[in-house]
Amino acid sequence: AHVPYSPQRYPEEAMLQRSKDFYSLMSQRRSVRFISPEPVPREVIDKVILTAGTAPSGAHTEPWTFVVVSDLDTKHKIRLIVEEEEEVNYRQRMGDKWVHDLARLRTNWIKEYLDVAPYLILIFKQTYGILPNGKKKTHYYNEISVSISCGIFLAALQNVGLVTVTSTPLNCGPQLRLLLKRPANEKLLMLLPVGYPAADATVPDLKRKNLEEIMVAI
Amino acid sequence: AHVPYSPQRYPEEAMLQRSKDFYSLMSQRRSVRFISPEPVPREVIDKVILTAGTAPSGAHTEPWTFVVVSDLDTKHKIRLIVEEEEEVNYRQRMGDKWVHDLARLRTNWIKEYLDVAPYLILIFKQTYGILPNGKKKTHYYNEISVSISCGIFLAALQNVGLVTVTSTPLNCGPQLRLLLKRPANEKLLMLLPVGYPAADATVPDLKRKNLEEIMVAI
Ligand SMILES: Cc1cc2nc3c(=O)[nH]c(=O)nc-3n(C[C@H](O)[C@H](O)[C@H](O)COP(=O)(O)O)c2cc1C
Ligand SMILES: Cc1cc2nc3c(=O)[nH]c(=O)nc-3n(C[C@H](O)[C@H](O)[C@H](O)COP(=O)(O)O)c2cc1C
Repeated sequence: AHVPYSPQRYPEEAMLQRSKDFYSLMSQRRSVRFISPEPVPREVIDKVILTAGTAPSGAHTEPWTFVVVSDLDTKHKIRLIVEEEEEVNYRQRMGDKWVHDLARLRTNWIKEYLDVAPYLILIFKQTYGILPNGKKKTHYYNEISVSISCGIFLAALQNVGLVTVTSTPLNCGPQLRLLLKRPANEKLLMLLPVGYPAADATVPDLKRKNLEEIMVAI
Repeated sequence: AHVPYSPQRYPEEAMLQRSKDFYSLMSQRRSVRFISPEPVPREVIDKVILTAGTAPSGAHTEPWTFVVVSDLDTKHKIRLIVEEEEEVNYRQRMGDKWVHDLARLRTNWIKEYLDVAPYLILIFKQTYGILPNGKKKTHYYNEISVSISCGIFLAALQNVGLVTVTSTPLNCGPQLRLLLKRPANEKLLMLLPVGYPAADATVPDLKRKNLEEIMVAI
């Protein structure tokens, strides 16, 4: 069944003001690799995840699972897995060029935030679903859909003043899937440590492209 | 160089309220396939695209190009290309199962919104960049980064009361790239018609998963 849809509409001036305010909010987002151990209300995290779950998805498959880890021991096990793989990534798999491209970000394989952040949020994409009759259900465009959901997650996080760093831990997926007991149809897409920024947090002094560099009007 | 980072911080009550308000806003987002021809201020679109450009990206490559089409003739050419390919997709390429999965959305290959929407926004991923010395620069995770940017785009659009439908036109990329004169390193990822919803717009009566279905806490 189809139902009527008439969302909130704003006068032009209000629209423009809202577009500026939201741009101003989002332009302050940065990937933060120094996270404070201070506790963060769990209810806020729940709402952020619910918000991510409003994303569109190919044929409405909603192919995402958000695993929220606050248990200290599990966080530490995640750290060990990620650091071991990341050291190999940096030393061998990524190649000099990639390591060089990352140099100005000063990232490396030591990831203290994996112990320190109050929450690690691991986002899995469900590469297929299981129908009631046991058959596999195709999840069209699952990686794109989950990445869109991650974008909405980042907006929701920024809106409440929390920080993260979007990361795609190379080669850690299978071990982390087993550690977290996720089923075989789920593949790790992203790992996001979430919390307040550390009091002395710093970020690389990056600039973003301006409108003319990212937009073409026809 | 690294610089200090201390973003706005909210008291816990304010955080919680903000998380609820943003969830309420985003939960009203729907994919709308009936778009009004009414004009939309161009400045709002510019701000929405700038907001999408605040997304994180692998090694800060910012691998996105937003092509904003308002020219009637170009919109119509896009419609012809998309409808021709989509008809073949529906009749042959997608298979009965996929077509069946889409049946309740009542989507098909006729896409009037491609003529009617005041803007068509085509999001290209830059699969590689070109360095000053002419060599190729790898764009790590370009599809994921552009999809995250699309998620932030959708949040920004919802925030101003505009609608779209996220679409990934299968097999139309090469023809649309040539029509829009985009370089060979750019591949079409998404096509989003943008405007106000039509006065009589309807949407499929879908439900979203609840928190317990998408979140696991450890
Ligand atoms: C990657 C992706 C591709 C999509 N492709 C199409 C499409 O080609 N045509 C269409 O009508 N809808 C498309 N959709 C929209 C979905 O059908 C829609 O998001 C889903 O049914 C959930 O509805 P909602 O967005 O209203 O919550 C796509 C969505 C995503 C995320
Ligand atoms: C798909 C993707 C993967 C990323 N992987 C990592 C990572 O493994 N480690 C890391 O420190 N940052 C990672 N980042 C963060 C980027 O380095 C960061 O977004 C970019 O430098 C721009 O900085 P900003 O997010 O502060 O704007 C990733 C970002 C994206 C979108």
